[in-house]
Amino acid sequence: MTTAKRDTYTPETLLTVAVRVFNERGYDGTSMEHLSQAAGISKSSIYHHVSGKEELLRRAVTRAIDALFAVLQEPGAVEGRAIERTEYVTRRTVEVLMAELPYVTLLLRVRGNTATERWAMERRREFDQRAADLLKAAAADGELRADVDIRLATRLLFGMVNSLVEWYRPHAGDGQEEALVAETVVRLAFDGLRTDPGPAHR
Amino acid sequence: MTTAKRDTYTPETLLTVAVRVFNERGYDGTSMEHLSQAAGISKSSIYHHVSGKEELLRRAVTRAIDALFAVLQEPGAVEGRAIERTEYVTRRTVEVLMAELPYVTLLLRVRGNTATERWAMERRREFDQRAADLLKAAAADGELRADVDIRLATRLLFGMVNSLVEWYRPHAGDGQEEALVAETVVRLAFDGLRTDPGPAHR
Repeated sequence: MTTAKRDTYTPETLLTVAVRVFNERGYDGTSMEHLSQAAGISKSSIYHHVSGKEELLRRAVTRAIDALFAVLQEPGAVEGRAIERTEYVTRRTVEVLMAELPYVTLLLRVRGNTATERWAMERRREFDQRAADLLKAAAADGELRADVDIRLATRLLFGMVNSLVEWYRPHAGDGQEEALVAETVVRLAFDGLRTDPGPAHR
Repeated sequence: MTTAKRDTYTPETLLTVAVRVFNERGYDGTSMEHLSQAAGISKSSIYHHVSGKEELLRRAVTRAIDALFAVLQEPGAVEGRAIERTEYVTRRTVEVLMAELPYVTLLLRVRGNTATERWAMERRREFDQRAADLLKAAAADGELRADVDIRLATRLLFGMVNSLVEWYRPHAGDGQEEALVAETVVRLAFDGLRTDPGPAHR
């Protein structure tokens, strides 16, 4: 039910509400009426801020996409050996995913029914390609196991990273938990869970 | 639109259609009308086979759950060292997921709005717990890295395994592809992607 709440929203704060509703109901399943109810303001008040739900989707996925692509510009992603850059981008992608959890969740769930969704999927594929290129470069340096298909490994690695949107829920908020999760992803993917069978350990 | 197709379904073949529609529209978003349209038979013909859509859901997730739990009874899952049993269950879980792709996809997407969905989620948690116990036993044997949180590692491992429902699509059907994917998951998770840094390799 729409309450008489006064419209104190900005496009930014309205976005927070919209992303929550999109993630709960799915973008397709969300109407302007649902957004109006969740925000507690009238539909015409929402139209005062944005042109409609597709603009809210575009703003939300843009936030996620910009945060992910920004990682690829950071010094750790462009300087040093390919294996180090690969580990860096993996770690930072996990951190961005946790910092922007609702926005990345929405990005990973878009299905391509509208122009904005198709654009978002295209940008996602571009990011995945950039990540795959890093793994290929590390493999070419002889730093990745030769008995593993790199394309398949890239999918599994980012399948693991992206699975966080299904089960990760922030607790402390002091950044320690986030750092532990990111470090565990990198250790699992690159060094594996098994005890190092080197001579120092057995 | 409902066509005049003669009802030649059995509960089994009807299930195949229903699972496809559930995965496309979501279980909540699927009505008996949608099922009737997809099967090309009347709603009353469907009611001749099953009591309703919840029975179809129950049959579908039961198939996935039974296949997953059967893995835990296989000799490779109960005999030998914990690390070997853990790798075995990981490999077989990937194989079951690919062999029963639409059924496991549905199982992984249920959200708990009905008694059947809540039961399915409970059984999933039980399976995850059994898998976590295996990893704990391997860690207790000193076979898993001590610097990794086992609960977190279990979530990441099965996050990677379960991600297959998002991107894996079968091609050849000769079983070779399935074996490669299962082996890559195990190698990535337990040995890591990095070249073995042992003295023989550097």
